[in-house]
Amino acid sequence: MASSAYQNTHLEHEIAQQPEVLQRLLDLETGHVKQIADAIRAFDPVYVYIAARGTSDNAARYAQYLMGIYCRLAVGLASPSIHTLYEVAPNLSRALVIGISQSGRAADVNQVLADAKAQGALTLSITNDADSLLAQTAHHHIPLHAEREISVAATKTYTAELAAVAMLVAALADDDELHQTLQTLPDLVSETLSMSSSIENWTERYRYISSFASIGRGFNYCTAFEISLKVKELCYVTGHGYSEADFLHGPIAQVQPGFPVVVVAPEGKTLGVMREALQKLHERQAEALVISNDESAFATAHQRILIPQMPEWISPIPAVIPGQMFAMYLAMAKGHNVDQPRGLTKVTVTR
Amino acid sequence: MASSAYQNTHLEHEIAQQPEVLQRLLDLETGHVKQIADAIRAFDPVYVYIAARGTSDNAARYAQYLMGIYCRLAVGLASPSIHTLYEVAPNLSRALVIGISQSGRAADVNQVLADAKAQGALTLSITNDADSLLAQTAHHHIPLHAEREISVAATKTYTAELAAVAMLVAALADDDELHQTLQTLPDLVSETLSMSSSIENWTERYRYISSFASIGRGFNYCTAFEISLKVKELCYVTGHGYSEADFLHGPIAQVQPGFPVVVVAPEGKTLGVMREALQKLHERQAEALVISNDESAFATAHQRILIPQMPEWISPIPAVIPGQMFAMYLAMAKGHNVDQPRGLTKVTVTR
Repeated sequence: MASSAYQNTHLEHEIAQQPEVLQRLLDLETGHVKQIADAIRAFDPVYVYIAARGTSDNAARYAQYLMGIYCRLAVGLASPSIHTLYEVAPNLSRALVIGISQSGRAADVNQVLADAKAQGALTLSITNDADSLLAQTAHHHIPLHAEREISVAATKTYTAELAAVAMLVAALADDDELHQTLQTLPDLVSETLSMSSSIENWTERYRYISSFASIGRGFNYCTAFEISLKVKELCYVTGHGYSEADFLHGPIAQVQPGFPVVVVAPEGKTLGVMREALQKLHERQAEALVISNDESAFATAHQRILIPQMPEWISPIPAVIPGQMFAMYLAMAKGHNVDQPRGLTKVTVTR
Repeated sequence: MASSAYQNTHLEHEIAQQPEVLQRLLDLETGHVKQIADAIRAFDPVYVYIAARGTSDNAARYAQYLMGIYCRLAVGLASPSIHTLYEVAPNLSRALVIGISQSGRAADVNQVLADAKAQGALTLSITNDADSLLAQTAHHHIPLHAEREISVAATKTYTAELAAVAMLVAALADDDELHQTLQTLPDLVSETLSMSSSIENWTERYRYISSFASIGRGFNYCTAFEISLKVKELCYVTGHGYSEADFLHGPIAQVQPGFPVVVVAPEGKTLGVMREALQKLHERQAEALVISNDESAFATAHQRILIPQMPEWISPIPAVIPGQMFAMYLAMAKGHNVDQPRGLTKVTVTR
């Protein structure tokens, strides 16, 4: 897109805002999050239980890996229907229960936290609205300070949710490397935005795809899910995000020559298995759109989507950005309204 | 399919075997499962953590709801990559950790159980091979007695896994209604097989679909996932299973006139929200294939797939069967080998 047309939509503007949103979150909340970490340590949770829907559920997936690996906390994702439709509250009294919701108005997520609090659990909410129902319900609240997000498709609030999770883990693990890397995050995201500007040049090739998949593993399991959600929401194309391991368990059967697969494969502990998956996709003549910062991942790539060098644990925050931009440019190529996808609403209040 | 041609493939045979497999499981394991329940009560787990992949992961999704609602146990699904690729074991010492795997040869599931056992957790495996690695690793083991499953697509081992979970929950909850309903399960499944025979008559209509979705909620969240997995594996069609709630959070944007959606909506606590979802699909002119035992769910259905009357909690076991048969007949209509889908193997050993 020519620079003159840039940021003509809310979505473009909100994607571009991400470095400043992350900088503000780090500036305003690092001290507060350390206090929350102290309260969590005092409570000494046996496990963590996270309630979320949609994009926020992908932030919960990131938390599963980050808390599991750096805090040795087992993390389960809640099934809010148990609380709302079946009106039963599992025993959560020894858990740290986290609710994540951009609007803070997810009634089902709120019910999980209210039930947990009544049982004596420690509760924490992460939302972009400090006055919201969910923020009021939880013992502790991390506000995202992302300003209003107008586009229906969440972008800046998603990366801010991931950053809030990462800040919490850095404080809980009390790990200098994590803290120092977090300070570089706004620059990493800014650099990723610049490096992703060429995506617009080749997105038209995918104008008529009718299906796709995206795959990742470990920390970037969430990235594969979130990119697929953006493509579904904005482009109305059928497909899904998978763990590379689950994909090989059956869904790979759908891959025929030319089938487009977004592969999130940055440098790190998962790169070896992701390279093996790329080889299997190559044997089936899939079309691989590879997001990586390691040359070896690009060997069979149809599109090389380069991101900056960084530790694997932080990579889900920058790595989703080319996916956001791909989904946006593809929706534009299709002539869709990127700020208001058909039939979606910004706030979904699930019963 | 004419009866003379019936059971010409392993898949047809294994689908038809399900009543006898379930009867054998109930006959041989009900007493043993009660002993395991005693051991679990003695251990008094704070929460449950389940490791599984593919079809078995859908059995784990069933366990989330059944254990949450009838035993008030919070259930989390493991992220095996944490154990295998990152070589970290979250603290699972106060958990009941369950591994589910048809073959019992899933190396990553086994690693989760081995790590948990070393920490003092109580471990249980559910497999179709009592001599398998996973069966040897766990403190307790429920064998499925499903005999060898030759077709790559799991059918009889899936419903047996769900039944094993249900037997465990009935024993843990010590609930007479659950026990009595379980005794009727082989007949319910047999009746469902008979009622599903007409599916063959209308499957050709879907010969050229290129995408689909399936949705369910609560107990039948797993059913939506499992039906979508069968369609992907056997028919090579792109689509996914969703919680009705998650579907409305974005993926519904892909629904255009004629888009096929399998809707699992039996009588129970979830029927109200499922009817609302059916209305939204109708407004978008989706083509709804509705699995239900309640007339009200069929108002906007293009295909009425009737199943027997039964309590909602047991319905995921019969309700998946028309989905298995739809996937099989669709694969046959497409001329695919239903026993050996392209490029899949029966045992997937994930690193």
